[in-house]
Amino acid sequence: MFRNLSRPIETGMPTYPGDPDVTLAPDATHEDDGYATGELRTGTHAGTHVDAPRHTLPEGEAIDECGVGSFAFDARLVDCRPAEPREPIAPEALPEPTALDPEVDLLVLRTGWASHWGTDRYRDHPHLTAAAAERCREAGVGVGLDAFGPDPTPSAGGDAESLASDGEEPDGTPAHDALLSDSLPIVENLCGLDDLPARFRLYAFPLRLREGDGSPVRAVAEWAEE
Amino acid sequence: MFRNLSRPIETGMPTYPGDPDVTLAPDATHEDDGYATGELRTGTHAGTHVDAPRHTLPEGEAIDECGVGSFAFDARLVDCRPAEPREPIAPEALPEPTALDPEVDLLVLRTGWASHWGTDRYRDHPHLTAAAAERCREAGVGVGLDAFGPDPTPSAGGDAESLASDGEEPDGTPAHDALLSDSLPIVENLCGLDDLPARFRLYAFPLRLREGDGSPVRAVAEWAEE
Repeated sequence: MFRNLSRPIETGMPTYPGDPDVTLAPDATHEDDGYATGELRTGTHAGTHVDAPRHTLPEGEAIDECGVGSFAFDARLVDCRPAEPREPIAPEALPEPTALDPEVDLLVLRTGWASHWGTDRYRDHPHLTAAAAERCREAGVGVGLDAFGPDPTPSAGGDAESLASDGEEPDGTPAHDALLSDSLPIVENLCGLDDLPARFRLYAFPLRLREGDGSPVRAVAEWAEE
Repeated sequence: MFRNLSRPIETGMPTYPGDPDVTLAPDATHEDDGYATGELRTGTHAGTHVDAPRHTLPEGEAIDECGVGSFAFDARLVDCRPAEPREPIAPEALPEPTALDPEVDLLVLRTGWASHWGTDRYRDHPHLTAAAAERCREAGVGVGLDAFGPDPTPSAGGDAESLASDGEEPDGTPAHDALLSDSLPIVENLCGLDDLPARFRLYAFPLRLREGDGSPVRAVAEWAEE
């Protein structure tokens, strides 16, 4: 059983604040050329994508330096719902490292924020506390989630206060840094998490972008049918 | 055991004649923004990629209409070497449909042309005869190959004669059409085929490009270690 977990990539799709706009336009056409091709312009972090360590760490590995096998995950779903806007996810919301099957290498956090895709509200997603990111590090697991990322995203109004509503430092990318410094992957803007089994295989192979800091991916879940 | 089978994607990489140039450039930077992102411009058929039926068939399925599971292949390697420039691959070079494990859904044709990547010679790859494409159709298998595609590519000198050197009609995309009209996938510009086992799983999940005619992919082989 396979399921798509990626957002569509299309002209004008939602992007992270400040990221390049996405366009997908025809190039060759059936009428003129006998076949159709298109041209895609996209940020490396548009839509459903993976982050390379280099995304937040200048000396981190680039996406084409990471072994491809590390993007075929043994994933465990973690239901973080319900969550308030900009709610911090504490370590207690995640499995204890000692209680986690050592085969698991990715926690897929279902925050419920997928339903806000395409609205300003999507920016107000829950995020990992420093302690929660540290728990992932201890367990040696990366993180996938149905939101822009594991750190807070600037609000639509540019209201920096909202970033600090949980009392944490609003600057920087602490959760990214904690995970990426151990080369633990981050998969962002997942969708389609409804009714997934607790354990599944997740494929999120990045394009082989030379010296890339991340890549759009086709995220796919696979599990055995009952 | 996993292995990358995709070409690097980078500024100035080789492309199919007439396709858009590829550029991959920095956007946000560590110095100015605290994190790095990039912007990719690419044709939908650049580098290692899959073709959607719509690539050559105006009414064919778009890439985002194909089920994701259909891009996790049970692949069989077929060694077509040695091959002369523009040599037609006859049906006899492929397994008999009746002798093929019904689990197999992709033939990966190793033409040896991967070694010419980045040179004019790369255009002079072997190609499938109409009868060979028909054999694939009968067997219900798609085709992956280490070349621009299953149909002849225009030569560097624009010498149309060279396309007809095998006596076949040089126009159009007959092998593409035969495969794509049955929604049989085509994976092009593979690399890394040396010493692959005869059977392996091949992942070539396309980006979810809205109404796309194809997509760059990270092609990955997986097989059980001995």
